[in-house]
Amino acid sequence: MRLKDIGEFGLIQRFQKKISLNSSVVKGSGDDCAVLKFNKGSYQLFTCDMIMEGVDFFKTADFRLVGRKALAISISDIAACGGIPKHAVVALGLPRNTRVGQIDRLAKGLFDLARKFNINIVGGDISTSSKLILDVSMLGVVEKNKLCLRQGARAGDMIMVTGEFGGAIKGKHLKFTPRLKEARFLVNNFKINAMIDVSDGLGQDLGHILKQSSVGAVLYESLIPLSKQALDTEEALGSGEEFELLFTASRGQASKIIKSVKYRFKVIGEIMPESFGLRLINYKNKYSKLKFRGFKHF
Amino acid sequence: MRLKDIGEFGLIQRFQKKISLNSSVVKGSGDDCAVLKFNKGSYQLFTCDMIMEGVDFFKTADFRLVGRKALAISISDIAACGGIPKHAVVALGLPRNTRVGQIDRLAKGLFDLARKFNINIVGGDISTSSKLILDVSMLGVVEKNKLCLRQGARAGDMIMVTGEFGGAIKGKHLKFTPRLKEARFLVNNFKINAMIDVSDGLGQDLGHILKQSSVGAVLYESLIPLSKQALDTEEALGSGEEFELLFTASRGQASKIIKSVKYRFKVIGEIMPESFGLRLINYKNKYSKLKFRGFKHF
Repeated sequence: MRLKDIGEFGLIQRFQKKISLNSSVVKGSGDDCAVLKFNKGSYQLFTCDMIMEGVDFFKTADFRLVGRKALAISISDIAACGGIPKHAVVALGLPRNTRVGQIDRLAKGLFDLARKFNINIVGGDISTSSKLILDVSMLGVVEKNKLCLRQGARAGDMIMVTGEFGGAIKGKHLKFTPRLKEARFLVNNFKINAMIDVSDGLGQDLGHILKQSSVGAVLYESLIPLSKQALDTEEALGSGEEFELLFTASRGQASKIIKSVKYRFKVIGEIMPESFGLRLINYKNKYSKLKFRGFKHF
Repeated sequence: MRLKDIGEFGLIQRFQKKISLNSSVVKGSGDDCAVLKFNKGSYQLFTCDMIMEGVDFFKTADFRLVGRKALAISISDIAACGGIPKHAVVALGLPRNTRVGQIDRLAKGLFDLARKFNINIVGGDISTSSKLILDVSMLGVVEKNKLCLRQGARAGDMIMVTGEFGGAIKGKHLKFTPRLKEARFLVNNFKINAMIDVSDGLGQDLGHILKQSSVGAVLYESLIPLSKQALDTEEALGSGEEFELLFTASRGQASKIIKSVKYRFKVIGEIMPESFGLRLINYKNKYSKLKFRGFKHF
């Protein structure tokens, strides 16, 4: 049996079965960040993301954007949990014949973004590699009452998003600004029941919320905000690395969130009981059997 | 200019110049772990290590030992700072056609060692990759008065080690047990002035202590404990991935450490003023000009 036979999520489940955790872990593997006991009022968040030439970017990509992306992904994970990023370590795999000028650009992208978000780059590891690899591990902090997980969505919640979806591969995946300000605005002013960042695809990531919250959902095709790069709704629902926030809140909270003028948030559907499953209502007001495809590594 | 022209340490210096840190960081890049403010009595330790097929192990290696090694390296870093490992996240790059049985062995090596050292594996990231890659990031904790860094060695200190050196590549590099018990025994009972784990090679890693402590040193060839796998003193001094502890303590502390029967520690030399440089006294009681070679990635 090969990896491709059990798939990415089959593999993750295989790992998760072996894990034993002690009481200092509030939430282990399976969310945007691990949640660790920290101090009286706060939890610590811990996440890692690896990106690789040929998978997450092309060899011809601007190294400044590659360095930037490596850090931005982890910031997005911390934001999705409602927290504030603090420290990061960076492991680099570098081909031996890499030009120093390229490394300088990579470092510039990484350190400029770190400075912008007040993140300390406190260490790292460097290795030779046949392809360029970056793995960022990040620590953050979140007030206990502001922690957002994938679990917690309730039937009747509005499903909301930041930004627009579709065609991230055409450029956004390298240039996005993590939605940290928006996430902090949400957790500072409203009660968010569940939140995730859209890395696998809107449909698939909504699926993570539904599964972990044991609920269903209905999405309205007419409400999905499409970017200029989007092909159509199906593509937008499956498009990975959009790095927008996807979250749920009660109807009352949602109406207040929509009225807030500081940032734009949009309702795209509603959380339903688990037995409802996940359905899309299309432009003709009919249930669509549209498949929610998303990115899988295997 | 290519990477190989500036070398691994040139590259690290290039990165370190760009770093700005705020006051929550006690010690950033440049030691075995980053040291972060944590609570009244303790610091948090944060480290990452990436290992890669073809560089740190061969394709034919037992995957159980590979998984084990990935975690053991970071435990060794936490130990070298005098701390206790707590939590880890694991980023995995896996070739698409990897056999599931191999992954299970990798997971077994990793999780068995995590259990042995009471470490919570709290998350990770999985990606496709042309070669097998593991990057472990680890958090630990250390009482403020027990923190050991590379800086802190003083002229007159004895230079001490655990274990034996040489030929780690023949097997020890995949099978070593991180010297956590020994490190905790040292910091719990004695005043250790500087400590590092030997990953680049005894000579080169001693060089890190000397540079960061602004001191020199004399080593006695007759005192270097050679393993059965060692070729000779020169090889033992240059052998990477030995993962023994190298530390310094005052003469008074050192004599007490040697008398302790619980673990074996050996004196191999003495810290000298910086102007003395680094010299080896050979079997004929003469200064040797032996070069301290060690592992460099570029």
